[in-house]
Amino acid sequence: MSPQGPRPGGRSARVQAAVHGAVLALQAERPRHEITVPLVAARAGVTPSTVYRRWGDLTELLADVAAARLRPDAAPADTGSLRGDLVAYAEQYLEEMSSPAGREVLRDLVAGAAPALPAGRCDAYVRGQLEAITARERARGGAPPPVGEIVERVMAPITYTILFVATALALADAARLVDALLAPRAAPVSPG
Amino acid sequence: MSPQGPRPGGRSARVQAAVHGAVLALQAERPRHEITVPLVAARAGVTPSTVYRRWGDLTELLADVAAARLRPDAAPADTGSLRGDLVAYAEQYLEEMSSPAGREVLRDLVAGAAPALPAGRCDAYVRGQLEAITARERARGGAPPPVGEIVERVMAPITYTILFVATALALADAARLVDALLAPRAAPVSPG
Repeated sequence: MSPQGPRPGGRSARVQAAVHGAVLALQAERPRHEITVPLVAARAGVTPSTVYRRWGDLTELLADVAAARLRPDAAPADTGSLRGDLVAYAEQYLEEMSSPAGREVLRDLVAGAAPALPAGRCDAYVRGQLEAITARERARGGAPPPVGEIVERVMAPITYTILFVATALALADAARLVDALLAPRAAPVSPG
Repeated sequence: MSPQGPRPGGRSARVQAAVHGAVLALQAERPRHEITVPLVAARAGVTPSTVYRRWGDLTELLADVAAARLRPDAAPADTGSLRGDLVAYAEQYLEEMSSPAGREVLRDLVAGAAPALPAGRCDAYVRGQLEAITARERARGGAPPPVGEIVERVMAPITYTILFVATALALADAARLVDALLAPRAAPVSPG
């Protein structure tokens, strides 16, 4: 559901689907700096003023499309254990977001202006998936860390590294971060 | 030193100083979407083609200016203890980056294209300051955590929250993250 809350099947929803589809098609064909609102509008079969009225400008439109791409379409994989579920989810996030297309999505999200709605939707999707994983663990009788702590210890370092660090993350970093999160709860870390 | 490595005092350095100064002046006067390369060039007293030749496009120019703003101009504060130094540095980063101007700087950095040089310079500045703090702690006879771990545990969650989470960070979050980083090394965390 977009922040504008279109009725499903209504004109608003049709415009949104056409414009989002046009953006995705153009992104597959052209470098970023060639994409303009008039081009998107022409491809979607709407007027540029429809796009400006609804999204404000190109940056906000791209951020909205980026957030929509991140909307989860399934529950997180159930591997039978908290560690397994967290590693699977973190690996999937790392793989998707560190791809060239994923980096573009993160950049578009972050470029969206304050109050940062599209980036906030991405964070909410992540927390929703982690809520599902931790609820499953509680149903198994376990005591998972709070979702906020998982975001800080696992998702934030992955995202920071993708956006700010030139050297690539390895897939093994996902498991390393999850193990560091879960380890102190099981055994003390030796000092020094 | 810019990636282009201008000679200090040479024409290249003068152009860089004039163009950076023009961007900062325009950013103080106008909303982002009104800033253009011709406007920056006119203010700096250079031709637009000089700007395009050197920076590529407006996004890369803004990212370069953002990185230059983050260059530390002093060693991190020496409070006499590792915890004190880390909390002071994390609080300063949190305050600067979560201000409206700081958020703009982070957004501009992240918008810079692959290979993400300006964002990488920001990360390198952060690691440089943390190297100074941990070297000081080793000179005191202490055993500080590796800089990479401090980035993951303290700087990454602060940055992620500024960019992706609508609710504001409190200054106390900086000390909370530092204490969580340092705590398991001193005493075991109880399970559950």
